[in-house]
Amino acid sequence: MRIIETRQAPNPRRVRIFLAEKSIAVPFEEIDLMAGDLKSAAFTKLNPWQRVPILVFDDGGVICETVAICRYFEAMHAEPALMGVDAFDQATVEMWQRRVELGLLTHIAHVMRHLNPKMAHLEVPQVAAWGEANKPKVTEALLALDARLADSRFIAGEAYTIADITALVAIDFMRPCKLALPDGVPNLRRWYAEVSARPSASA
Amino acid sequence: MRIIETRQAPNPRRVRIFLAEKSIAVPFEEIDLMAGDLKSAAFTKLNPWQRVPILVFDDGGVICETVAICRYFEAMHAEPALMGVDAFDQATVEMWQRRVELGLLTHIAHVMRHLNPKMAHLEVPQVAAWGEANKPKVTEALLALDARLADSRFIAGEAYTIADITALVAIDFMRPCKLALPDGVPNLRRWYAEVSARPSASA
Repeated sequence: MRIIETRQAPNPRRVRIFLAEKSIAVPFEEIDLMAGDLKSAAFTKLNPWQRVPILVFDDGGVICETVAICRYFEAMHAEPALMGVDAFDQATVEMWQRRVELGLLTHIAHVMRHLNPKMAHLEVPQVAAWGEANKPKVTEALLALDARLADSRFIAGEAYTIADITALVAIDFMRPCKLALPDGVPNLRRWYAEVSARPSASA
Repeated sequence: MRIIETRQAPNPRRVRIFLAEKSIAVPFEEIDLMAGDLKSAAFTKLNPWQRVPILVFDDGGVICETVAICRYFEAMHAEPALMGVDAFDQATVEMWQRRVELGLLTHIAHVMRHLNPKMAHLEVPQVAAWGEANKPKVTEALLALDARLADSRFIAGEAYTIADITALVAIDFMRPCKLALPDGVPNLRRWYAEVSARPSASA
Protein backbone atom coordinates (compact mmCIF):
# COMPACT_ATOMS: atom_id res chain seq x y z
CA MET A 1 0.00 0.00 0.00
CA ARG A 2 0.95 3.64 -0.29
CA ILE A 3 -0.47 7.02 0.68
CA ILE A 4 -0.67 9.83 -1.85
CA GLU A 5 -0.50 13.20 -0.13
CA THR A 6 0.65 16.80 -0.28
CA ARG A 7 3.02 17.24 2.64
CA GLN A 8 2.21 20.87 3.44
CA ALA A 9 -1.58 20.43 3.55
CA PRO A 10 -3.23 19.87 6.95
CA ASN A 11 -5.22 16.70 6.30
CA PRO A 12 -2.25 14.57 5.24
CA ARG A 13 -0.45 15.62 8.43
CA ARG A 14 -3.36 14.25 10.46
CA VAL A 15 -2.76 10.83 8.90
CA ARG A 16 1.03 11.03 9.36
CA ILE A 17 0.68 11.81 13.08
CA PHE A 18 -1.92 9.05 13.48
CA LEU A 19 0.44 6.52 11.90
CA ALA A 20 3.41 7.77 13.95
CA GLU A 21 1.43 7.29 17.17
CA LYS A 22 0.76 3.70 16.13
CA SER A 23 4.33 3.13 14.85
CA ILE A 24 3.03 2.12 11.42
CA ALA A 25 5.24 2.83 8.40
CA VAL A 26 3.55 3.39 5.04
CA PRO A 27 5.32 4.76 1.94
CA PHE A 28 4.21 8.24 0.95
CA GLU A 29 3.99 9.66 -2.54
CA GLU A 30 3.83 13.43 -3.01
CA ILE A 31 1.60 15.35 -5.42
CA ASP A 32 1.52 19.12 -5.74
CA LEU A 33 -1.97 20.41 -5.16
CA MET A 34 -0.94 24.00 -5.86
CA ALA A 35 0.19 22.87 -9.33
CA GLY A 36 -3.23 21.37 -10.06
CA ASP A 37 -2.29 17.71 -9.58
CA LEU A 38 -5.62 17.03 -7.83
CA LYS A 39 -7.38 17.60 -11.13
CA SER A 40 -5.09 15.38 -13.21
CA ALA A 41 -6.74 12.45 -14.97
CA ALA A 42 -4.56 9.93 -13.13
CA PHE A 43 -5.41 11.28 -9.68
CA THR A 44 -9.08 11.84 -10.48
CA LYS A 45 -9.35 8.19 -11.45
CA LEU A 46 -8.13 7.27 -7.94
CA ASN A 47 -10.27 9.89 -6.18
CA PRO A 48 -13.02 11.48 -8.27
CA TRP A 49 -13.61 13.88 -5.34
CA GLN A 50 -10.09 15.28 -5.87
CA ARG A 51 -8.83 15.45 -2.29
CA VAL A 52 -5.67 14.31 -0.50
CA PRO A 53 -4.66 12.17 1.31
CA ILE A 54 -5.70 8.84 -0.19
CA LEU A 55 -4.66 5.31 0.75
CA VAL A 56 -4.02 3.06 -2.28
CA PHE A 57 -3.82 -0.70 -1.85
CA ASP A 58 -1.73 -2.97 -4.04
CA ASP A 59 -4.91 -4.64 -5.36
CA GLY A 60 -6.22 -1.26 -6.56
CA GLY A 61 -8.59 -0.56 -3.68
CA VAL A 62 -8.63 3.06 -2.55
CA ILE A 63 -9.70 4.68 0.72
CA CYS A 64 -10.10 8.46 0.62
CA GLU A 65 -10.94 10.90 3.41
CA THR A 66 -8.56 11.43 6.32
CA VAL A 67 -10.73 9.99 9.07
CA ALA A 68 -11.66 6.95 6.95
CA ILE A 69 -7.96 6.22 6.43
CA CYS A 70 -7.41 6.51 10.18
CA ARG A 71 -10.39 4.23 10.79
CA TYR A 72 -8.78 1.55 8.61
CA PHE A 73 -5.54 1.60 10.58
CA GLU A 74 -7.41 1.73 13.91
CA ALA A 75 -9.29 -1.43 12.95
CA MET A 76 -6.11 -3.19 11.78
CA HIS A 77 -3.85 -2.03 14.64
CA ALA A 78 -5.91 -1.55 17.78
CA GLU A 79 -3.03 -0.44 20.05
CA PRO A 80 -2.63 2.29 21.07
CA ALA A 81 -6.33 3.10 20.69
CA LEU A 82 -6.75 6.55 19.14
CA MET A 83 -10.49 6.34 18.41
CA GLY A 84 -11.84 5.07 21.72
CA VAL A 85 -12.23 1.66 23.32
CA ASP A 86 -15.79 0.82 24.43
CA ALA A 87 -19.01 2.11 22.86
CA PHE A 88 -19.38 5.26 24.96
CA ASP A 89 -15.69 6.05 24.63
CA GLN A 90 -15.71 5.58 20.84
CA ALA A 91 -18.72 7.87 20.60
CA THR A 92 -17.08 10.44 22.86
CA VAL A 93 -13.92 10.51 20.75
CA GLU A 94 -15.98 10.82 17.57
CA MET A 95 -17.99 13.67 19.09
CA TRP A 96 -14.83 15.63 19.93
CA GLN A 97 -13.12 14.76 16.66
CA ARG A 98 -16.11 16.16 14.80
CA ARG A 99 -16.40 19.25 16.99
CA VAL A 100 -12.74 20.03 16.33
CA GLU A 101 -12.88 19.23 12.63
CA LEU A 102 -16.19 20.90 11.82
CA GLY A 103 -16.06 23.63 14.44
CA LEU A 104 -12.39 24.64 14.15
CA LEU A 105 -10.36 23.14 11.30
CA THR A 106 -13.08 23.71 8.71
CA HIS A 107 -13.39 27.39 9.66
CA ILE A 108 -9.60 27.85 9.49
CA ALA A 109 -9.60 26.19 6.07
CA HIS A 110 -12.34 28.54 4.86
CA VAL A 111 -10.21 31.52 5.91
CA MET A 112 -7.35 30.15 3.80
CA ARG A 113 -9.45 29.11 0.83
CA HIS A 114 -11.50 32.30 0.58
CA LEU A 115 -8.89 34.93 1.46
CA ASN A 116 -5.63 33.65 -0.05
CA PRO A 117 -5.33 34.57 -3.75
CA LYS A 118 -3.16 31.48 -4.31
CA MET A 119 -6.18 29.27 -3.54
CA ALA A 120 -8.34 30.82 -6.28
CA HIS A 121 -7.92 27.77 -8.54
CA LEU A 122 -9.15 25.42 -5.79
CA GLU A 123 -12.00 27.48 -4.34
CA VAL A 124 -14.32 28.78 -7.05
CA PRO A 125 -15.65 31.36 -6.45
CA GLN A 126 -13.72 32.80 -3.55
CA VAL A 127 -16.10 34.78 -1.32
CA ALA A 128 -14.01 37.17 0.77
CA ALA A 129 -16.89 38.09 3.08
CA TRP A 130 -17.30 34.40 3.94
CA GLY A 131 -13.57 34.07 4.61
CA GLU A 132 -13.80 36.99 7.03
CA ALA A 133 -16.95 35.59 8.65
CA ASN A 134 -15.01 32.47 9.64
CA LYS A 135 -12.44 34.34 11.74
CA PRO A 136 -14.69 34.89 14.79
CA LYS A 137 -15.91 31.28 14.46
CA VAL A 138 -12.29 30.15 14.87
CA THR A 139 -11.92 32.22 18.03
CA GLU A 140 -15.20 30.90 19.41
CA ALA A 141 -14.10 27.29 18.89
CA LEU A 142 -10.72 27.94 20.53
CA LEU A 143 -12.44 29.42 23.59
CA ALA A 144 -14.76 26.40 23.77
CA LEU A 145 -11.77 24.05 23.62
CA ASP A 146 -10.02 26.05 26.33
CA ALA A 147 -13.07 25.60 28.56
CA ARG A 148 -13.07 21.87 27.85
CA LEU A 149 -9.37 21.56 28.63
CA ALA A 150 -9.87 23.14 32.05
CA ASP A 151 -11.43 19.82 33.08
CA SER A 152 -9.62 17.33 30.89
CA ARG A 153 -5.98 16.47 30.12
CA PHE A 154 -6.73 15.79 26.45
CA ILE A 155 -9.61 16.89 24.27
CA ALA A 156 -11.70 13.72 24.42
CA GLY A 157 -10.70 12.82 27.98
CA GLU A 158 -7.67 11.43 29.81
CA ALA A 159 -6.27 9.65 26.74
CA TYR A 160 -4.61 11.15 23.67
CA THR A 161 -6.83 10.54 20.64
CA ILE A 162 -7.53 11.52 17.04
CA ALA A 163 -9.36 14.58 18.40
CA ASP A 164 -6.04 15.90 19.71
CA ILE A 165 -4.40 15.22 16.36
CA THR A 166 -7.06 17.18 14.49
CA ALA A 167 -6.81 20.07 16.95
CA LEU A 168 -3.00 20.20 16.85
CA VAL A 169 -2.98 20.21 13.06
CA ALA A 170 -5.72 22.84 12.96
CA ILE A 171 -3.89 25.16 15.34
CA ASP A 172 -0.59 24.78 13.50
CA PHE A 173 -2.44 25.53 10.26
CA MET A 174 -3.53 28.88 11.70
CA ARG A 175 -0.05 30.32 11.07
CA PRO A 176 -0.11 30.12 7.24
CA CYS A 177 -3.68 31.44 7.48
CA LYS A 178 -2.35 34.48 9.40
CA LEU A 179 -4.47 33.64 12.44
CA ALA A 180 -3.18 33.72 16.03
CA LEU A 181 -4.35 32.17 19.30
CA PRO A 182 -6.46 34.63 21.27
CA ASP A 183 -5.51 35.80 24.75
CA GLY A 184 -7.07 34.03 27.69
CA VAL A 185 -6.70 30.39 26.66
CA PRO A 186 -4.27 29.04 29.30
CA ASN A 187 -5.68 25.50 29.24
CA LEU A 188 -5.40 25.33 25.48
CA ARG A 189 -1.79 26.54 25.66
CA ARG A 190 -0.95 23.93 28.34
CA TRP A 191 -2.47 21.20 26.17
CA TYR A 192 -0.77 22.53 23.02
CA ALA A 193 2.66 22.40 24.68
CA GLU A 194 2.06 18.79 25.71
CA VAL A 195 0.82 17.46 22.38
CA SER A 196 3.43 19.42 20.40
CA ALA A 197 6.18 17.78 22.45
CA ARG A 198 5.17 14.26 21.42
CA PRO A 199 7.52 12.76 18.80
CA SER A 200 4.55 12.26 16.45
CA ALA A 201 4.07 16.03 16.14
CA SER A 202 7.02 16.22 13.75
CA ALA A 203 5.50 13.63 11.41
CA MET B 1 -31.57 7.48 27.92
CA ARG B 2 -33.30 10.01 25.70
CA ILE B 3 -32.54 11.96 22.54
CA ILE B 4 -33.16 15.70 22.39
CA GLU B 5 -33.89 16.80 18.84
CA THR B 6 -35.77 19.14 16.56
CA ARG B 7 -37.91 16.95 14.37
CA GLN B 8 -37.84 19.06 11.22
CA ALA B 9 -34.03 19.47 11.10
CA PRO B 10 -32.02 17.09 8.91
CA ASN B 11 -29.46 15.76 11.41
CA PRO B 12 -32.01 14.40 13.90
CA ARG B 13 -33.71 12.55 11.04
CA ARG B 14 -30.40 10.80 10.28
CA VAL B 15 -30.41 9.40 13.81
CA ARG B 16 -34.11 8.42 13.67
CA ILE B 17 -33.59 6.48 10.43
CA PHE B 18 -30.46 4.83 11.82
CA LEU B 19 -32.37 3.67 14.91
CA ALA B 20 -35.33 2.51 12.83
CA GLU B 21 -33.03 0.36 10.67
CA LYS B 22 -31.71 -1.28 13.85
CA SER B 23 -35.18 -1.52 15.47
CA ILE B 24 -34.00 0.42 18.51
CA ALA B 25 -36.56 2.53 20.38
CA VAL B 26 -35.32 5.59 22.27
CA PRO B 27 -37.60 8.31 23.69
CA PHE B 28 -37.34 11.64 21.90
CA GLU B 29 -37.72 15.08 23.42
CA GLU B 30 -38.38 18.04 21.13
CA ILE B 31 -36.84 21.49 21.33
CA ASP B 32 -37.59 24.35 18.95
CA LEU B 33 -34.40 25.58 17.34
CA MET B 34 -36.23 28.31 15.45
CA ALA B 35 -37.39 29.70 18.82
CA GLY B 36 -33.80 29.88 20.09
CA ASP B 37 -33.91 26.81 22.36
CA LEU B 38 -30.36 25.85 21.29
CA LYS B 39 -29.06 28.89 23.12
CA SER B 40 -31.01 28.32 26.33
CA ALA B 41 -28.92 27.84 29.47
CA ALA B 42 -30.37 24.37 30.08
CA PHE B 43 -29.53 23.11 26.60
CA THR B 44 -26.13 24.81 26.47
CA LYS B 45 -25.20 23.01 29.67
CA LEU B 46 -25.88 19.71 27.90
CA ASN B 47 -24.20 20.74 24.63
CA PRO B 48 -22.03 23.87 24.80
CA TRP B 49 -21.71 23.62 20.98
CA GLN B 50 -25.48 24.22 20.69
CA ARG B 51 -26.44 21.62 18.13
CA VAL B 52 -29.12 18.91 17.91
CA PRO B 53 -29.50 15.97 18.17
CA ILE B 54 -27.91 14.92 21.45
CA LEU B 55 -28.10 11.62 23.32
CA VAL B 56 -28.51 12.01 27.08
CA PHE B 57 -27.87 9.06 29.40
CA ASP B 58 -29.63 8.57 32.72
CA ASP B 59 -26.31 9.00 34.55
CA GLY B 60 -25.84 12.44 32.99
CA GLY B 61 -23.42 11.43 30.20
CA VAL B 62 -24.05 13.17 26.88
CA ILE B 63 -23.06 12.26 23.33
CA CYS B 64 -23.47 15.02 20.75
CA GLU B 65 -22.91 14.95 16.98
CA THR B 66 -25.10 12.81 14.75
CA VAL B 67 -22.45 10.36 13.59
CA ALA B 68 -21.09 9.93 17.12
CA ILE B 69 -24.59 9.01 18.31
CA CYS B 70 -24.87 6.51 15.47
CA ARG B 71 -21.42 5.13 16.37
CA TYR B 72 -22.61 4.45 19.92
CA PHE B 73 -25.60 2.44 18.74
CA GLU B 74 -23.54 0.61 16.11
CA ALA B 75 -21.12 -0.52 18.83
CA MET B 76 -23.94 -1.59 21.15
CA HIS B 77 -26.17 -3.24 18.49
CA ALA B 78 -23.98 -4.63 15.73
CA GLU B 79 -26.82 -6.03 13.59
CA PRO B 80 -27.68 -4.94 10.98
CA ALA B 81 -24.29 -3.35 10.39
CA LEU B 82 -24.74 0.19 9.07
CA MET B 83 -21.12 1.35 9.42
CA GLY B 84 -19.24 -1.52 7.81
CA VAL B 85 -18.01 -4.91 8.98
CA ASP B 86 -14.28 -5.52 8.47
CA ALA B 87 -11.55 -2.85 8.43
CA PHE B 88 -11.68 -2.07 4.70
CA ASP B 89 -15.46 -2.06 4.72
CA GLN B 90 -15.67 0.23 7.75
CA ALA B 91 -13.25 2.63 6.08
CA THR B 92 -15.19 2.50 2.82
CA VAL B 93 -18.46 3.33 4.57
CA GLU B 94 -16.79 6.17 6.46
CA MET B 95 -15.30 7.51 3.22
CA TRP B 96 -18.71 7.62 1.55
CA GLN B 97 -20.48 8.92 4.63
CA ARG B 98 -18.02 11.81 4.74
CA ARG B 99 -18.21 12.49 1.01
CA VAL B 100 -21.99 12.71 1.26
CA GLU B 101 -22.00 14.75 4.45
CA LEU B 102 -19.21 17.17 3.62
CA GLY B 103 -19.68 17.22 -0.16
CA LEU B 104 -23.49 17.34 -0.33
CA LEU B 105 -25.39 17.84 2.93
CA THR B 106 -23.09 20.61 4.15
CA HIS B 107 -23.50 22.56 0.91
CA ILE B 108 -27.28 22.19 1.04
CA ALA B 109 -27.22 23.41 4.64
CA HIS B 110 -25.16 26.45 3.64
CA VAL B 111 -27.77 27.33 1.02
CA MET B 112 -30.43 27.24 3.73
CA ARG B 113 -28.44 29.01 6.40
CA HIS B 114 -27.14 31.83 4.21
CA LEU B 115 -30.15 32.49 1.98
CA ASN B 116 -33.18 31.97 4.22
CA PRO B 117 -33.97 35.10 6.27
CA LYS B 118 -35.49 32.89 8.99
CA MET B 119 -32.03 31.47 9.70
CA ALA B 120 -30.48 34.87 10.42
CA HIS B 121 -30.45 34.24 14.17
CA LEU B 122 -28.51 30.97 13.72
CA GLU B 123 -26.04 32.00 11.01
CA VAL B 124 -24.29 35.26 11.86
CA PRO B 125 -23.49 36.90 9.54
CA GLN B 126 -25.43 35.50 6.62
CA VAL B 127 -23.34 35.82 3.45
CA ALA B 128 -25.69 35.59 0.49
CA ALA B 129 -22.88 35.23 -2.07
CA TRP B 130 -21.63 32.18 -0.17
CA GLY B 131 -25.13 30.72 -0.10
CA GLU B 132 -25.32 31.10 -3.87
CA ALA B 133 -21.82 29.66 -4.35
CA ASN B 134 -22.97 26.43 -2.74
CA LYS B 135 -25.69 25.74 -5.30
CA PRO B 136 -23.35 24.47 -8.06
CA LYS B 137 -21.44 22.46 -5.45
CA VAL B 138 -24.69 20.64 -4.64
CA THR B 139 -25.21 19.80 -8.31
CA GLU B 140 -21.61 18.63 -8.68
CA ALA B 141 -21.97 16.26 -5.72
CA LEU B 142 -25.25 14.86 -7.05
CA LEU B 143 -23.63 14.13 -10.41
CA ALA B 144 -20.72 12.39 -8.66
CA LEU B 145 -23.16 10.26 -6.66
CA ASP B 146 -25.05 9.40 -9.85
CA ALA B 147 -21.79 8.19 -11.39
CA ARG B 148 -21.06 6.09 -8.32
CA LEU B 149 -24.55 4.57 -8.35
CA ALA B 150 -24.10 3.42 -11.93
CA ASP B 151 -21.80 0.72 -10.48
CA SER B 152 -23.24 0.13 -7.06
CA ARG B 153 -26.65 -0.68 -5.58
CA PHE B 154 -26.08 1.54 -2.55
CA ILE B 155 -23.69 4.40 -2.00
CA ALA B 156 -21.00 2.54 -0.09
CA GLY B 157 -21.46 -0.75 -1.96
CA GLU B 158 -23.97 -3.61 -2.03
CA ALA B 159 -25.21 -3.02 1.53
CA TYR B 160 -27.42 -0.19 2.84
CA THR B 161 -25.38 1.95 5.25
CA ILE B 162 -25.22 5.26 7.07
CA ALA B 163 -23.96 6.81 3.84
CA ASP B 164 -27.37 6.12 2.27
CA ILE B 165 -29.09 7.62 5.28
CA THR B 166 -27.08 10.83 5.04
CA ALA B 167 -27.71 11.07 1.30
CA LEU B 168 -31.46 10.44 1.60
CA VAL B 169 -31.81 13.06 4.32
CA ALA B 170 -29.70 15.52 2.34
CA ILE B 171 -31.78 15.10 -0.82
CA ASP B 172 -35.07 15.41 1.05
CA PHE B 173 -33.70 18.56 2.70
CA MET B 174 -33.22 20.11 -0.73
CA ARG B 175 -36.96 20.82 -0.97
CA PRO B 176 -37.19 23.33 1.90
CA CYS B 177 -33.96 24.83 0.51
CA LYS B 178 -35.73 25.33 -2.84
CA LEU B 179 -33.25 23.10 -4.64
CA ALA B 180 -34.20 20.39 -7.15
CA LEU B 181 -32.46 17.31 -8.51
CA PRO B 182 -30.76 18.09 -11.82
CA ASP B 183 -31.62 16.29 -15.04
CA GLY B 184 -29.49 13.37 -16.07
CA VAL B 185 -29.16 11.49 -12.78
CA PRO B 186 -31.02 8.22 -13.53
CA ASN B 187 -28.92 6.11 -11.18
CA LEU B 188 -29.46 8.52 -8.33
CA ARG B 189 -33.22 8.48 -8.98
CA ARG B 190 -33.27 4.65 -9.05
CA TRP B 191 -31.39 4.58 -5.71
CA TYR B 192 -33.60 7.33 -4.23
CA ALA B 193 -36.76 5.37 -5.04
CA GLU B 194 -35.34 2.29 -3.35
CA VAL B 195 -34.14 3.93 -0.14
CA SER B 196 -37.25 6.11 0.15
CA ALA B 197 -39.42 2.98 0.06
CA ARG B 198 -37.78 1.46 3.14
CA PRO B 199 -39.96 1.74 6.26
CA SER B 200 -37.18 3.62 8.04
CA ALA B 201 -37.53 6.55 5.61
CA SER B 202 -40.65 7.72 7.44
CA ALA B 203 -38.84 7.85 10.78
